[in-house]
This record gives sequence, C-alpha cells and structure tokens, in this order.
Amino acid sequence: MTQFVYLFDEDGKKGKELLGGKGANLAEMTRIGLPVPYGFTISTEACNTYYQAGKRLPSEMKKQIETALHHLEGRTGKKLGDTRNPLLVSVRSGAVHSMPGMMDTVLNLGMNDETVEAVASLTYNPRFAYDTYRRFIQMFSDVVLHVDGFYFEQLLEEVRIAKGYTTDPEMTAEDWKEVIEGYKELVRKHAKKDFPQDPKEQLQLSISAVFDSWNNQRAFVYRRLHKIPDDLGTAVNIQSMVFGNMGNDSGTGVAFTRNPSTGEAKIYGEYLINAQGEDVVAGIRTPQPIAAMETAMPKVYQQFAETCHLLESHYKDMQDIEFTVERGKLFILQTRTGKRTAQAAIRIAAELVKESIIDKKEAILRIEPEQLNQLLHRRLDDAKERNVMAKGLPASPGAATGQVVFDADEAERMAKDGKKVILVRPETTPDDIHGIVAAEATVTSRGGMTSHAAVVARGMGKACICGCEALSINLKLQQIAVAGTIIEKGDVITIDGSTGEIMNGEIPMIDPELSEEFQLLLTWADEERTLGVRANADNPEDAQKALEFGAGGIGLCRTEHMFMDSARIPVVQEMILAETFDERMEALDQLLVMQQEDFELIFEAMKGLPVTIRLLDPPLHEFLPDKEELLVEVTKLQLSSSFSEELLEKERLLRNVRKLDECNPMLGHRGCRLGMIFPEIYEMQVKAIFYAICNLRDKGMDAAPEIMIPLVGHVNELKEMRQLVIGTAMEIEQEAGQEFNYQIGTMIEVPRAALTADQIAKEADFFSFGTNDLTQTTFGYSRDDAEGKFLSTYIENKVLPENPFATLDQEGVGKLVELGVRLGRETKPGLKTGICGEHGGEKESIRFCHETGLDYVSCSPYRVPLARLAAAHAAIKQAQKQGESRELQLH
Amino acid sequence: MTQFVYLFDEDGKKGKELLGGKGANLAEMTRIGLPVPYGFTISTEACNTYYQAGKRLPSEMKKQIETALHHLEGRTGKKLGDTRNPLLVSVRSGAVHSMPGMMDTVLNLGMNDETVEAVASLTYNPRFAYDTYRRFIQMFSDVVLHVDGFYFEQLLEEVRIAKGYTTDPEMTAEDWKEVIEGYKELVRKHAKKDFPQDPKEQLQLSISAVFDSWNNQRAFVYRRLHKIPDDLGTAVNIQSMVFGNMGNDSGTGVAFTRNPSTGEAKIYGEYLINAQGEDVVAGIRTPQPIAAMETAMPKVYQQFAETCHLLESHYKDMQDIEFTVERGKLFILQTRTGKRTAQAAIRIAAELVKESIIDKKEAILRIEPEQLNQLLHRRLDDAKERNVMAKGLPASPGAATGQVVFDADEAERMAKDGKKVILVRPETTPDDIHGIVAAEATVTSRGGMTSHAAVVARGMGKACICGCEALSINLKLQQIAVAGTIIEKGDVITIDGSTGEIMNGEIPMIDPELSEEFQLLLTWADEERTLGVRANADNPEDAQKALEFGAGGIGLCRTEHMFMDSARIPVVQEMILAETFDERMEALDQLLVMQQEDFELIFEAMKGLPVTIRLLDPPLHEFLPDKEELLVEVTKLQLSSSFSEELLEKERLLRNVRKLDECNPMLGHRGCRLGMIFPEIYEMQVKAIFYAICNLRDKGMDAAPEIMIPLVGHVNELKEMRQLVIGTAMEIEQEAGQEFNYQIGTMIEVPRAALTADQIAKEADFFSFGTNDLTQTTFGYSRDDAEGKFLSTYIENKVLPENPFATLDQEGVGKLVELGVRLGRETKPGLKTGICGEHGGEKESIRFCHETGLDYVSCSPYRVPLARLAAAHAAIKQAQKQGESRELQLH
Repeated sequence: MTQFVYLFDEDGKKGKELLGGKGANLAEMTRIGLPVPYGFTISTEACNTYYQAGKRLPSEMKKQIETALHHLEGRTGKKLGDTRNPLLVSVRSGAVHSMPGMMDTVLNLGMNDETVEAVASLTYNPRFAYDTYRRFIQMFSDVVLHVDGFYFEQLLEEVRIAKGYTTDPEMTAEDWKEVIEGYKELVRKHAKKDFPQDPKEQLQLSISAVFDSWNNQRAFVYRRLHKIPDDLGTAVNIQSMVFGNMGNDSGTGVAFTRNPSTGEAKIYGEYLINAQGEDVVAGIRTPQPIAAMETAMPKVYQQFAETCHLLESHYKDMQDIEFTVERGKLFILQTRTGKRTAQAAIRIAAELVKESIIDKKEAILRIEPEQLNQLLHRRLDDAKERNVMAKGLPASPGAATGQVVFDADEAERMAKDGKKVILVRPETTPDDIHGIVAAEATVTSRGGMTSHAAVVARGMGKACICGCEALSINLKLQQIAVAGTIIEKGDVITIDGSTGEIMNGEIPMIDPELSEEFQLLLTWADEERTLGVRANADNPEDAQKALEFGAGGIGLCRTEHMFMDSARIPVVQEMILAETFDERMEALDQLLVMQQEDFELIFEAMKGLPVTIRLLDPPLHEFLPDKEELLVEVTKLQLSSSFSEELLEKERLLRNVRKLDECNPMLGHRGCRLGMIFPEIYEMQVKAIFYAICNLRDKGMDAAPEIMIPLVGHVNELKEMRQLVIGTAMEIEQEAGQEFNYQIGTMIEVPRAALTADQIAKEADFFSFGTNDLTQTTFGYSRDDAEGKFLSTYIENKVLPENPFATLDQEGVGKLVELGVRLGRETKPGLKTGICGEHGGEKESIRFCHETGLDYVSCSPYRVPLARLAAAHAAIKQAQKQGESRELQLH
Repeated sequence: MTQFVYLFDEDGKKGKELLGGKGANLAEMTRIGLPVPYGFTISTEACNTYYQAGKRLPSEMKKQIETALHHLEGRTGKKLGDTRNPLLVSVRSGAVHSMPGMMDTVLNLGMNDETVEAVASLTYNPRFAYDTYRRFIQMFSDVVLHVDGFYFEQLLEEVRIAKGYTTDPEMTAEDWKEVIEGYKELVRKHAKKDFPQDPKEQLQLSISAVFDSWNNQRAFVYRRLHKIPDDLGTAVNIQSMVFGNMGNDSGTGVAFTRNPSTGEAKIYGEYLINAQGEDVVAGIRTPQPIAAMETAMPKVYQQFAETCHLLESHYKDMQDIEFTVERGKLFILQTRTGKRTAQAAIRIAAELVKESIIDKKEAILRIEPEQLNQLLHRRLDDAKERNVMAKGLPASPGAATGQVVFDADEAERMAKDGKKVILVRPETTPDDIHGIVAAEATVTSRGGMTSHAAVVARGMGKACICGCEALSINLKLQQIAVAGTIIEKGDVITIDGSTGEIMNGEIPMIDPELSEEFQLLLTWADEERTLGVRANADNPEDAQKALEFGAGGIGLCRTEHMFMDSARIPVVQEMILAETFDERMEALDQLLVMQQEDFELIFEAMKGLPVTIRLLDPPLHEFLPDKEELLVEVTKLQLSSSFSEELLEKERLLRNVRKLDECNPMLGHRGCRLGMIFPEIYEMQVKAIFYAICNLRDKGMDAAPEIMIPLVGHVNELKEMRQLVIGTAMEIEQEAGQEFNYQIGTMIEVPRAALTADQIAKEADFFSFGTNDLTQTTFGYSRDDAEGKFLSTYIENKVLPENPFATLDQEGVGKLVELGVRLGRETKPGLKTGICGEHGGEKESIRFCHETGLDYVSCSPYRVPLARLAAAHAAIKQAQKQGESRELQLH
C-alpha cells in the first residue's frame, strides 16, 4: 500500500521529489528544532495518483489524510470544526522546483459560522475572527469554487464606502459580519451553491484544488520558461495556522538571509504588523523593512536573526524565509534557497567561500551560466544627466528603455512585433507572467521588494521597479500621471532597476564592466575548465571586448561583415558585376587595401592570440540590391513613356541580379564554392592577411592567423583552396623576404564533411564545427523559413525537445560532430577542433563540446564569461560523475 | 632495366594493360597461328615514361626499339631504308581500352625518294609505289608535322583537274611523281623544313607523335565520355606493311563475325578492292559488302570465314577484324571484341548461350545495363505513313527527329540550348565526336557501315545513317538537295536508323517493345538478382508501363503530381488560400474525390502488387502563381489611374503568395512538416487511399498500400503522422465494416533521419531512402542552383569524381544510407528498406544498394529493365568476388 501522507516529524528523511520542496523543508526544519507550525504533507506521488484516478482523491488517500489530521489534532490540542477549540489549517502547494505564486493556496481553513464564534471568544478578538473568516471565504471561493476575487473586493469596497471608511483596519467586527453575509450571498449567486460549512469537505475540496492548480495556465507557462517537466506533480502541505494578525504584537514577514539583489551579507526583507502572510507577498500593502522589527520587537528579532544564521549554516546557502509572529512568538513558515540576481549570486558564492562554508567548485556550480547575461547587459551611462520623474524600490537591477504598456497581453503582442515595451501595473499577479517575460522591464506602483513582480523579475534577470507610489496609474485611460506630466500608452520611458529611477524618453547606455567578485569567480572557473573559450569577432572593437571578457583568441572572424560596410558595398558590387577580368581585379585591389587594414587592427587588438579568419562565405547576391525592388522599379520605368538611361542601367542590374539569384541560397554558390570558381577573391583576402602581418611586424608585433575555408564538402575543395593559400603566402614571403606562421583549416558545416572527416583531415590543420549550418543541413531546416512556419509549433508541441538552433541537437547533429572529431583524429591524432556556431555560447552545448573532447568553443564576446563558467561546470560535473562511478565500482 | 619493347612472338603472355588492346591481340593472334604481319609493341609503360621524360624517348627505349627493328628486319628479310628490298611499317596506337579513330596512325613508313624506286621495281608497279609514297607523305605530314591534310587534298584536286581526270585511279605513276614534288614543297612551306628522308628519323618522330596523340582533344573527350582514366597511356605497334592496293587480287576490309547492328550470326562487313585499310575506315570510298568477296575471291573468303570462326571460339565473343589481301594472300591485321548495338549485344549473348560458348551468367554480364536505354527509346510508329526522301545504310538503329545542322560545333551549341538536332555531314572524322554526342542522330552521305560515324554512333547507342548518296550536301550554302527539295539548316527531319530512311518533318513515335531475346535475358537476370526492382509511377499509365517492364511494385507514387493537373490546380489553390477552416475543408472534399479515383486506377493497374504512396511533399507555394509575375502585374495595375477590382484581387493574391514565400524552399515548410501543421491535408489523402480500396473491393480486387511519410527528421514527426494515418484508417474501417492491410513507413532523406534511424524505426514499417534530397542535404547542394553555378565545373575539374545526383556518392551519402539501414535493423531486424531517388536506376548505385542489403530499388519505369540487369550484375559479381576470396583463403 502506497504511503501518500507524511507527518512533518515522521522518522526517516524523505526527499523533495516525494514531498516537494516546501514539504521536505518543513520536515527538515522540524527535525532541526525550528519553531515550525505542526502539520503533514500529501506527496507528489499522490498528485499523480489523483490525476490518474481522473482527478479524484482515492479512498485510501482520504483515509491516510484522516489519520494524519487526527495526529495533527492530537499535537495541537485543537480539532477541525470544533466549536470550542477549533483547528485552522493552511493548504499549500509545494512542487519539487519552486514555482513562486504559480499554484494555489488556501489559508484559515476550518472556519465556518460556528468556529468563527469559538475563535472570537478564544482570542478575545471578534474583529480578528470575522476578518479571518471573511478572508477564508474569499480565498476558498476564488481557489476552489472559481468565484472571481473581484466580486468580493467590489462588495468590500461598497461596504467601506457606505461606512465612510478609507482603510480596512477601520472595519469593526460587526462590519465584517455584514461583509460575510454578503460574501455568502455572492457564493450562492456565482457558484450556484452554499458556501460549505463542513471543514472536512472544505479540506478535501481544497486539496483537490491545489492538485488542480498544477495544471493551470500560469503554472504551465512558468514550467516551460524554466524547463520544468510537466509530470512531476505538486505535493500539498497541511499545516496548522498561526496568526500574524492578532494585534500589534503579531506580524508576518518575508526575509532573505542576504540581500538577493546585491548579495550583501545582511538580513534583508520586509514585514507587516498585524497582518497575514499573503498581504506581504501579494504586494497590496507596502510593508516595512525588516530592520524596523529590530526596534519594534527586539527579542523576536534576535531570535529571528539566530534562526537565519542556523538555516544558512544548515543549508549552506542564502535562504528565503517566511515567518509569522503570533502574539510575540516566532514561527518559521517556510525556508528555501533564495532566488537572487546574478550579481548577488556571484557575491554570495564568493563570500561563502571566504566564510569557508562552501569550496570554490561549489561556488562555481552555484552560478547558473545563463544568469551571467544579466550582468553583461548594457547599463545607463552615469555621465549622462538623468531627468528622474519618479523613484520606486530597486527591485531587480538592470536598465531598460521601452514603450509603456499597461496590460500583459498587450506587452506580449507588441514584443512579438519586435517592439521593446515596459509593463507598468499597479501590481502584478501570477496571471501577468507572460507580460513580464515579454517586457524589457516591469514597474509597479504598489508592493515591495518581495512582491510578485519583484521575485519573478529577479528570477528572470529582468529589470524591475516596485512600489513606485508616485505613479498614478489610470488603467481605463491608459495613462500615468507623474510629476505633473502625463505618460500615454506607447510613450518611451527608461528605467534603472538598480536605483529605482524612472526617466522620460531614452537614455544612452554604456557597456557593462565585470565586478571584482565576478572576475574572481571566472578565475576560479578558468582553473577548473579544460575547454578553451574563444570569441566570434569581426572587427577591432569586438576583438577588444572579447579580450576584456577573457577570450583566448578569436574563433571566427567573418570577413563578409567587413564587406557589408556601407562605404565598401559599392566596391564589392563593382567587383561582382565586373564585366571583364581587369574590372574585377581593379575592384579587388581596392578591397585588398580595406581588408588589410581590418586584419591589421584585429591582429593588433588580439596581441598575438590566435585569430581564425574565415574566407568569404555568403553568396554574392547578398551584396546586390534586392531583386523585387529592382523589378518594381524597372516595371515602373518601362511604363513611363520617355526613354531613359536609368531604365537601361536598372535593366542591366536586374539581369545581373537574376543571374546570381538562387532558389536555395543556403545550399547554393557560397562558401569555398566561391573560392573555387572565383579564386581571385580568396587570393585577395589571403594577400590582405599576410600584408597585414608584414605591416604588423614593421611595428614590432606579430600574428599567427588560422585561415579557415568554409563549407567544404569534399576533401578536394580543401586541397585546392589550401594550395591557393600556400601559394599566395609563398609569393608574399618571397616578396617581403619573411616567413609566416599560419594554419589552414576548415569549417565542418555540411554533413558530408563530418562523414568524410578522415579524408578532410589530411588537408586540415584544424576543424571548426559550424553548427548553425550543420543544424540546417542535418535537419533539412532553413532557419529563415522554419521558425515562422513550423519550428515554433514543433517546440510548443514538444515534437522537438528544444530549438535545435539554440541548443545543439546531440542526438543528430551531435552525432556528426562526434564522428567528425573521431574520424579527423584517426587521421591526425590531436587535431585541433572547435565549434563556432551560436551553440558555442550555450550551456548544454558547451557541456557536450567538453565531453566530446573539442579543444575550444567560440561564441559572441558577451557570452565569453558564460562559456568560461559553463566549461568549468562541465569539467567539475564530469569529474564528479567519474568519481561517483569509481565509488560505485569500489562498493 | 625496364623492358619497353615486346616482339609479337615473344614467349610469355603479357596482358593488354602493358601491350594495349591491339598489341596484346596481335601477340595472341600470332601465338594461335593466324597470318599476322610480323612486328613488335612499345608498351603503355613506355608511353608514361615518355611523358615523365618531358615527351622524349629515353635512349634506353631507343636502343630497345633498334634491337626489335633488327629482329623484324631479320624475320621479313627486308631492311628499313634499304634501296633494294626496303621494309615498310605501320606505326599504330593501341590503348588498353579501344578508342576507335581517336589517336594517330602512320602507314607506309620507310618510304623515301630512294626506297620508292625499289618498291616500284620489286612490285613491277611504279604507279602503286608512287601512290603509296604520296600517301605516306600526306599522312606523316598531317600526324607528325601538323600540316593540315586539306592542303594536300587541294593540291591533288588541282593536279587531277589540270589533267582532266575525275577520279584518283586515272592518275599515272608520272602524275603521282608530280604530286609528290608538290607535296614536298607544301611540307617545306608549312612545316618550315624538308620532308625527312631518313626512315629511322621517320620512325622516331612517328612513335613520339602516336604517344602525343594520347592527349589530343578528341581522345580526351572520348575518354571522358567512356569514363576511361587519363593516366593509362597508349602502346605503339610497329608492324610490317602489307598492301591491299597491289592490284585487283589485293584488297582490304573490316568485318564483324556477327552483325553488330542486329546480332544476326552471319559475317558482316565490307571490303574495298585494291585499297589500303584507311580507305575503308575513313569512309571516303563506299565499299562493297563482304558477301561480294565470296564471289570475287572464293578461296580467300573461305580462309577468312574459317579464321572468323577460329577467333570467335578463341575469344568467346563476336570479333571486329581488320584484314588485308596482298596478291591473293590473307593477312589479319587486327581483331578485337566488336562494338555492337544493345539489340545486337542481347541477341549475340543469348545465341552464344544457345551455342554453348558461354553460360547464362556470362551472357548477363556481357550486357552493359546502360546500353538498354537504347532499346527503350521510342521508335517510329509503323502504322503512320512515311514519306521517305532518301535511304542510306542502316548504320545504327533508333529513331530521331531534329533540326538539321551541318557542323559539330553548331550541333553542340544548339543542343546546349535545349534543341534537338540531327548532324548531317558528307562524312565524319574523329574531330566531329562532340557533335555526334550532342546530336540526336548522325547522317552521312559517304562511308559504309564500318565508317567512323557508324562505329561511334553504335557505341553510343545513337541512331545513324551512313552512305546516303542521294543527299547532295552543300556545306557552303548549308543546304541539302534531295529528291527535288531543298532542306535548309534548321529544318526538321526524322530518320530511322534501323531502316536507313530519312523523312521530312516530324513523324509520330510509339513506345518500345522488348524483343524475345531481351525478355529471355531479363528472365535470366531475375534468376540471379536478389534485389527487388520497383518503379516510380504517379499515374495509371506509368503503373501499366512499370508492370510491362517487370517492376515488382511501385516504390514511389508522388501524390503532388496529381495535384499539378491543370483541372485540379484551381481547387488546390482554393485549399491553400482558404481563409476559414470551412473553406479549406470544402476544397479538400473536392480533392478527396479526385485523389480517390487516382489511387483506385493505380491500384487496379498494379493488380495487388505493393504500391508505396508518398503523402504530399512540396511546399504549398509551388501550387500558387509566380511571385515575380504577380509583382509586375500589381505594379502595372497600381500605375494605371483607374480603380480596379482586379488590382485588389491581385494584391490579395500577392500577399498570400508572399506569406508562403520561402528563402530556401528546399529546406522549408514541406514534407511531413505540412502534415504536422495542416493535418487535414494528409487526412484527406489517407481517406482517398482507403476509400479507393473500398471501391476496389466492391469490384472483387484488393490493394495493400504502403503509406510513406516524407521528410521525417525526428521520430516524433513520424509518430504523430502514424497516429493520424491509423486513426483515419480506423474511422473508415468502422464506417465500411472492413479491415485494411497497409503499412506505414518513411522516407529517409535528411541526414538526421539516417543518424537517428534506430529511433525512427520504432514507428516505421519500412524505410525508403530518398537519395535525391539526401544528396542535397548531405552535400549542402541545392540541385537547382549547383549545376549552373559550380557543380559542372567541379565535375569537369575532377573536384568531384562523379555528379552525385547521377551516381550515388558512396563515400558520404552512402555512409548515411548504410548507417540508416544498420540502425533501422538494429531496432527492427529485417526492416524493409528501399531507395527511390534517381539513383535507383543507375548501375553503380544499384550495385551499392545490393551490397548494402537493401530490399529494393525504385526507378522510372523505363529504367526498370536496366535495374533488373544491374541488380543481376551486382549479385553475380559479388558471388564471383566471394568465390575468389574463398579460393584465396584455400590457397
């Protein structure tokens, strides 16, 4: 018989896979002696059983819940539904991975028309009792009976106004009683049934509702976003209630053991006096900083600070703690590893090493490589004047500029159209998550640093400002009134999440710098990793940036980007459209001078580190005017009656464009196929490289380029191009009386190259896997076409587990990479191999590259730190795995 | 020390790799006691040495030639340059593979001002002696000194006219002396030196010239056409001359032991009285049929017939023999396996089996699969009236219609422009070979069945008519006068190479039928082959044809060809452009009825044999109007001032066309990606298949379709489409109360499918390798773009050994096919596998498929016989190889 229910103080440590993160935590906290309100957990297994049974609680499960409830009643001395000493419980979701606010919770369960009286007399506080009862009705009706919370808010507002109150605390017990009657009427009207008075029925319905909430829309979106499998299920935690709203010696709060935004080692959080937990998280009332508690309740604060320390030592990481003070007594409701910004993550990891709590490897593993992107975003230029309109709480760092929108759906729509938007809301709820994802940043006028918007934004590394009460948001008019101006929907604002400042219009941004801790952590990572990291850079600026970020060289310098420069494109076009060989050579001579300068500057910037230069790759028609535009122009000119020189010229151009036009340019006349048919182009590029080196040497510097022939499919192509490079280099060597150091290699980017890598290796000094094109040809996907036509549907429907252009497809494309490396090294042991597709900057793909034995990855300069870290992760994890398997063998 | 020179009667049998075909033959004929003029062979190895030495004869080689010459002089009792009894020799090329007429020959070498007198007095025939001398000067000057033959012809013509003669035989000895003086003058003028009188110098120069001719243009073209490697080199044969021009008891001829056109077992050939061999081959004089020799020289003919029989028994194949009769004595100058038409090849092979000279397997191997194409060409409809203008010799069978051209270069040019041409010449020379290749057929007004044009055309399986003297060809005016009409260049004529008839205009053609011997041979092939042969057929007519040609089923039925029908395309467009789901379903319902009928007729035609139906494959925009045309129309309509409904409509259409437009349609939204996004289309097709079977069953027939999902790259695609097919089939099964037999399989046509074939096999009942697309994606070549842009250059320059779209690239694409088969069968042992690209009809690719263990190939109906034969070749050769390696192991 399966055990579905586990008591918090049950013997034997069960994992969070079974109990969910929250349940396992509560059990563990109970075990280490923390003041946790008593309760039990219904397992994730039970959730799956519930779904398998057609969303019903099987009788066996009901029986186990009943037993656990008895136990709980015994422990607390209270009884569910008892009219003298009633037990009230919370019913909370608790999945394996934290999904803050995504699923449902019911508090104060056990309240009914009779128990409310008991609570009133036990607490000598009828106002509290009726307030709690009405909260329960509202929450239960929303979560279980699906009656929209709006109706209840509306009714409450009406009563308040009728009484002439402005805030809830003004409401009396009698007022709440009146509200409760209204609430019950609302339930009858919208749920078509009476509000259930039987606490056991309340409990069963709530458990089912929490299970159901595993599959609600926002939980589904969140899981997709965080790559959490759909079949894990959630546990349900039943816990006796404690009350932070029992007067001014009560309160509730949320705190982090360190600052989740900066990482500073100081308790950071907020609390509300005389309130229940949901008031803090929902961000409806702006709470006080936790420091205020030190003054208000010094003894409790002291106990809390000690608990924080205990928890951090125990879990060896910064904790996110929910607590309640009931009449001066501290209860810990929940603790979990706190979400943090990348900046904080790095500082915390580095400081935990200094405090000898964790070691360097652990510190490295603590930083998710993808998080680093946050730190490498551009930020506002401090030198520029900021015209600050308003200032809120700096809830999540980062700068952003965008058009104001007031609605999550709208934010998503506009972002899909390629617009940058900033979502502005009075507060956000879990239903807004898709809008926060789509927006550059989120701003709220209510709620604190631990409000929904703040937590979610920090988790995603998006800038966020909360509780900016200076903003008067009118959702109906779609306007913000602030500092005497009106901001309309669509107006551009800029925000700085690190300061909480909101500015009108666009503010210039500058490149990021790496913090000291960040640099330190990357140094640690470099000690661990064996995989080299290079950068893709096509100009001296990018080369400079790559060096700053710690690249070990340039793994891909795309020479066509140099051709695309607006000053050069006319010369490139002359070269392409030349009608005689002499005309072509003349244009090439001009390009030679330009390319030579490019290379010289790049070599100079790289200070002797390896630079892999790919010779011209794209089809020539990419440099010519658009065919359709020309066609329209020609058609128009043809229709105009007068003869025109322009027409003749355009017609000629159109003919030329058509001559180069291709049905499938991706599979057309490009890569080394250009060099094979127009060797003079490659010759020019090779000359530019070596002339650049001559110049460099005159200045006392040097470079050892790695010349890369793209799109080789047959060894004979590489053989011929290799001879061209060597021949050209020799000419210049003789001319200049010098000798050059260089290597000649190839991209492996069509399947045939990987399949015949043993032959190709004979002519290659190195391989660089061009996994962008290799993915296109291996799948038979044109990236330009696939995304809009079918690929997004494939990913959404899980036909493909991942977008293969973002994460290397190890099953298919990866097999070719492995084969290419293996065959290549059969011919040339130790053949240098790298990867220069976009995958070179993606964590999972980097791990694959490490495990496949590649020498290096090359990625965009901004992803170099990520790659360094991910490469260290791969090395550490592989070593751990090998250690484990060695241990397994020993036992 | 290398032996470069071999005597004909030297001990030890050397192969033709060393001696060339002709040299090995002469040695062998000498050995079996045939009357062969004595001589020796300079080896192919010597040729390569000659090239390595910078086109010089090394002194060692010269010394060996000298020794052999001494030997020859001893044997014949004659001496080179001797003024009393001079030796005259021929110097002929002789490569490993026969290359008729492609390389150079020098006859009558040894003639000079002194030896000519000796010959005159020895033969009592000064006229013959001076004629021979002038022939020698002419030939030597052309071949060795590069003085164009035209000058000599012109001078001869002038002398003849001056003397008032119309033919050469009227010339006297004195006339020839005059011509000789003129010839010497010509040599002095054009070669800037005297005609060499030293016979040893003549010999060395001639040997060098023959070596040089290995690399002349026409030999190069011929080798490329017949796929002969360039580095084999040619041998040179030095042989004492015999003279067919020593009077009316002398003659020369060429004969086949069987008819090379029809295969009939009867000596077939031609001879000329009082002539030298070149007169026959060059086709300048029209010779007499060999049968005439029986009357003219019965004894010699008897000896010749016996020799033919002896040679055929010895070589076990039909022989092509050159002979000379010198004053009543028969000499065999050369014998080789005779080239023949496919028709003749089949009849000869079949009859040699009946005559117990060879066995069935040998007979099968005797037929080159590619040859069969000739027999499967359409031929003239006998039922239609032929208006025959002229009749020549039926030199090579087959019918052809085309525009008349008079020049080989022009023929090539026009053919490149896609025109069909018939090359008409007074005679052809080896320099015309590219024109014969390009033309549909060749017609000459001079020359016989063994003339150059005839031999070359038969070898290529092209129709040819020779010696059609009724044609009066005027090359200057580019006209033919015939039967009172004038045919201009560009006029269309039709010829029948089997009858020699030439008709004005175009004559309707009908489909070929297979001869009895052909059927018999294919039956033998079927007994040997293990590889199945299916046909690609998209309609009932093709299905019918496939069955006739012996296909074992349909391996690929492309359903989109059914969509392309002009009556259907509007409905297809409606379906594509539908703006609501209902509109789309309405169009699909119409298409359902049409497709159902298609399938019904195809199933009916195939009589229960397997039919593999591929669901819709091409991108939808292929069914829509051309974007550029629309753009021009819209631009024009926009410019016209008046408002027009048409404009709105066209604009809407253009928008829709653009929406479906793709950058790389080959890699775009096609294949199963259509079925995944628009399942209703595939559902319609599946319904059509099963409704067709229901109808068929009502008529007492049945079908077991193999439904094929195209372009699968990930197993999940196939899984989903498989469920769609099964679901749809089940619906109809329930509806109709029937059960269907069917299989569901997939095309393996992107590399990823082959790489993950183990997974894909879980969902597949069969694999069909779509090697057209697999070649495109493996190489990264768009077939539409590659050919014109770089692929032809690649093939010409041998960057690629073959066109991978014609012959399967075994190194790359083949590796994926092997992997796909292996992985697929790891999951499903015995998984049915086939190939349905164009490679399925190509000999080498078929051999690969056999060796890789595929179950079948599928090709166009007309290539089915070829595939049956090629599959038998593959099986027999594999068995032979295994036998050999078994023998090797035993020894």
